[in-house]
Amino acid sequence: MVEKHVPAAGRAQRPEGEECMGTERLVVVGGDAAGMTAASQARRGRADLEIVALEKGPYVSYAACGIPYYVGGLVDEFEKLLVRTPEEFLRRQNIEVRVHHEVVGIEPGQGRVVVRDLEAGRDYEESYDHLVIATGAKAVWPLVPGVDAQGIMGITSLEDARTLRELLERQRPEQVVIVGGGYIGLEMAEAFHRHGIGVSIVGRAPEVLRPLDPDMGELVSKALLEMGLHLYLGETVSAFEQTDGHVSAVVTEKRTLPADLVLIATGLRPNTGLAGEAGLSLGVSDAIKVDDHMRTTLDRIWAAGDCVETVQLVTGEPYWISAATVASKQGRVAGSNITGGDAAFAGTLGTIITKVGPIEIARTGLQETELSGGDIRFATATVNTITAARYHPASEPMRVKLIGEVGSGRLLGGQIVGGMGAGTRINIVVTALHAGMTVDLLAELDLAYAPPFSAVWDPILLAARELKAKL
Amino acid sequence: MVEKHVPAAGRAQRPEGEECMGTERLVVVGGDAAGMTAASQARRGRADLEIVALEKGPYVSYAACGIPYYVGGLVDEFEKLLVRTPEEFLRRQNIEVRVHHEVVGIEPGQGRVVVRDLEAGRDYEESYDHLVIATGAKAVWPLVPGVDAQGIMGITSLEDARTLRELLERQRPEQVVIVGGGYIGLEMAEAFHRHGIGVSIVGRAPEVLRPLDPDMGELVSKALLEMGLHLYLGETVSAFEQTDGHVSAVVTEKRTLPADLVLIATGLRPNTGLAGEAGLSLGVSDAIKVDDHMRTTLDRIWAAGDCVETVQLVTGEPYWISAATVASKQGRVAGSNITGGDAAFAGTLGTIITKVGPIEIARTGLQETELSGGDIRFATATVNTITAARYHPASEPMRVKLIGEVGSGRLLGGQIVGGMGAGTRINIVVTALHAGMTVDLLAELDLAYAPPFSAVWDPILLAARELKAKL
Repeated sequence: MVEKHVPAAGRAQRPEGEECMGTERLVVVGGDAAGMTAASQARRGRADLEIVALEKGPYVSYAACGIPYYVGGLVDEFEKLLVRTPEEFLRRQNIEVRVHHEVVGIEPGQGRVVVRDLEAGRDYEESYDHLVIATGAKAVWPLVPGVDAQGIMGITSLEDARTLRELLERQRPEQVVIVGGGYIGLEMAEAFHRHGIGVSIVGRAPEVLRPLDPDMGELVSKALLEMGLHLYLGETVSAFEQTDGHVSAVVTEKRTLPADLVLIATGLRPNTGLAGEAGLSLGVSDAIKVDDHMRTTLDRIWAAGDCVETVQLVTGEPYWISAATVASKQGRVAGSNITGGDAAFAGTLGTIITKVGPIEIARTGLQETELSGGDIRFATATVNTITAARYHPASEPMRVKLIGEVGSGRLLGGQIVGGMGAGTRINIVVTALHAGMTVDLLAELDLAYAPPFSAVWDPILLAARELKAKL
Repeated sequence: MVEKHVPAAGRAQRPEGEECMGTERLVVVGGDAAGMTAASQARRGRADLEIVALEKGPYVSYAACGIPYYVGGLVDEFEKLLVRTPEEFLRRQNIEVRVHHEVVGIEPGQGRVVVRDLEAGRDYEESYDHLVIATGAKAVWPLVPGVDAQGIMGITSLEDARTLRELLERQRPEQVVIVGGGYIGLEMAEAFHRHGIGVSIVGRAPEVLRPLDPDMGELVSKALLEMGLHLYLGETVSAFEQTDGHVSAVVTEKRTLPADLVLIATGLRPNTGLAGEAGLSLGVSDAIKVDDHMRTTLDRIWAAGDCVETVQLVTGEPYWISAATVASKQGRVAGSNITGGDAAFAGTLGTIITKVGPIEIARTGLQETELSGGDIRFATATVNTITAARYHPASEPMRVKLIGEVGSGRLLGGQIVGGMGAGTRINIVVTALHAGMTVDLLAELDLAYAPPFSAVWDPILLAARELKAKL
């Protein structure tokens, strides 16, 4: 059943009489960081634009990155993760948000989308003059026996977060197995750990966190073990055992791990089924191809966020990352250009930071595992040093690894693992990479020094000094 | 009385027979960061060089920046501030260090210095092939009645630190007045505060910390008041009252403040009397003129550290700063060039970071008070934001001020005041300034984001975005 533009229960309704002939309409598909930032920026650019955002879930504009902190109890109230409600979007920005409305088809030729009102159970069409696709990413799910048992969960939405925390408080599981050693897996490991639950992590790679080289990842693994977590690395899940339909164990090629709760965190993929079906070109990563203005390959259709392919700034190559910062920036660029602006998103360095227990972890640019076997001649320098002056009580161990290009002397990337204040030093490397800085200059930076913050020679300077001797 | 090269009590002696005809000799005047770094670097460059370091005080190579933390008790043992002893320099690097030996004259024509053995009470000559002057800075002392009373102290050396902490523990003063609202004054204020002593700060400027613009300094003043400290700003000390030769009060044009201890922290000046008398050219700041290789205007004489004039990298103008980082870098450059290297120290951004109570304070580059009335057309942007994600418990208020050049769009400087994690963000600005980055690019940086570390839009990005609209 396809009807034409029917208001429904989940919809924050626009006052009567505002719609008129000749008004241009922006339709946004997906109501999180990229989509709602695009909508907000478009509103700043044009007061007269009609803006409709369609979201299949119950929430828009929420802090997905805050989920582990809510599940762990560090953030007490669920509502704190909601940045802005549909009602606020309508009242403050005249943006109409329809939650529980899923876009199930795009018809570029007709300039319209087919929307499914999930609560009313009917489809309708919505015409657009500009369309922003911001459908985000979806979880990769292991296709092994028993994966559909109860007690096996993902954590890709705010609803998942709410369900999981309720489950933790109501059912009090004793043993959770996390499948996947990426940063979402680790952040969730800490969340479970805060609840006093036994945590095991099963990961395919030899160390956790593949966005780090193994010599850096091993420090994280050590920190996790010191926290009392169990690691089963270099192992693959082959099945889930169940009792009465509920998961009871995770089976790998080496062992069977008892579990009354399993979290799947084996990675994300761009959610681009809809875009692909509509005929938009996808890139090598299966994400939507866009130019630096966030234009897709079809007229009047823009895309932003986890569903698009971007550029790795160091190599200039296509690159895919799921990151709230990238999504927000791209959303802003799309919203600006839709309303007559000339904004660009050049690309990303793949910067990541996270924290597990007392350990801060960060990376940016290229890493050794990416460069090995490639055309770029590189050298690395790794220093083990301290976060603050040796005699200051804030001083904790940290390790920095920097990578540079032999010949040109150009900085290529950096990784950091260490105590408080270690991780954010990655921003020095980020800024240097954007500037195309040489390691020589990096070694000379007039970085801030005072005993609570650094030794006289900042760890980045020490690593750069060591690296420049090799380039 | 002038003798020739007499070993004395304070001297860590070289084994007999090592000195021989034809060996080149490096003499270093002043045994802290710049001097001892130069000596160490020279040793790395040449194993055969004879190296003698002359220090008038009892200690070399100590952590001067750690003094407030030792006085405050955060660093428990005095010895932790000693980086390396004279005996270690001799044993590990074959560098002969003579403490309590003051250089009282330089004779460039003869290639020798006149040394006063302060313990033996006699002078002798020491010849050099290369001389490094690293005489540091000296305190500016207010020339007002009563300033010579007991209980009025400076804090420019490790001996001062030792004396002061002993005094705090033995005499238990109740009211300390700090004259000077610079960062040393503030760090010492916190140290006294930790001892439970009532602290008043008298400063001439309308806000504390003149390396900040007043609109940033006011935040620091507020934080100090919230800590329970007393501020008397825009006031000048006109006299010290005394009772039985001991200070009893500090008099300004507006009030008389009771005090049983006074700390003078009214600033530092380059300590260049010796260099001036020897005929070395001094710069506009009265510090020793050097080129980027740390060569002075006289042959075979080098200088490094707080006694030299350097370059402000943003303006290219002569600049003087007292900073351990600059001193260490310059010492390294001097030591390298003396032994056949070709190292350069291009200049400084005037980066400063400090912490008072819970508040982090940082600045780099040019500030509004420096630019006002000058030739550079500039604009500023100030944002009041938060250090971490709004919903994360680590989130604290912070303010960022950025300054950029109108027309070129070039970044000129930045200042930060705020909670934990605010201050070290200055290193993003530092790196951008070294790269000559535009504010446009600064606003696009792929900075690290995770809820414990930042909001999605880092404060630096927010400030840059606001600033670029004005350039």
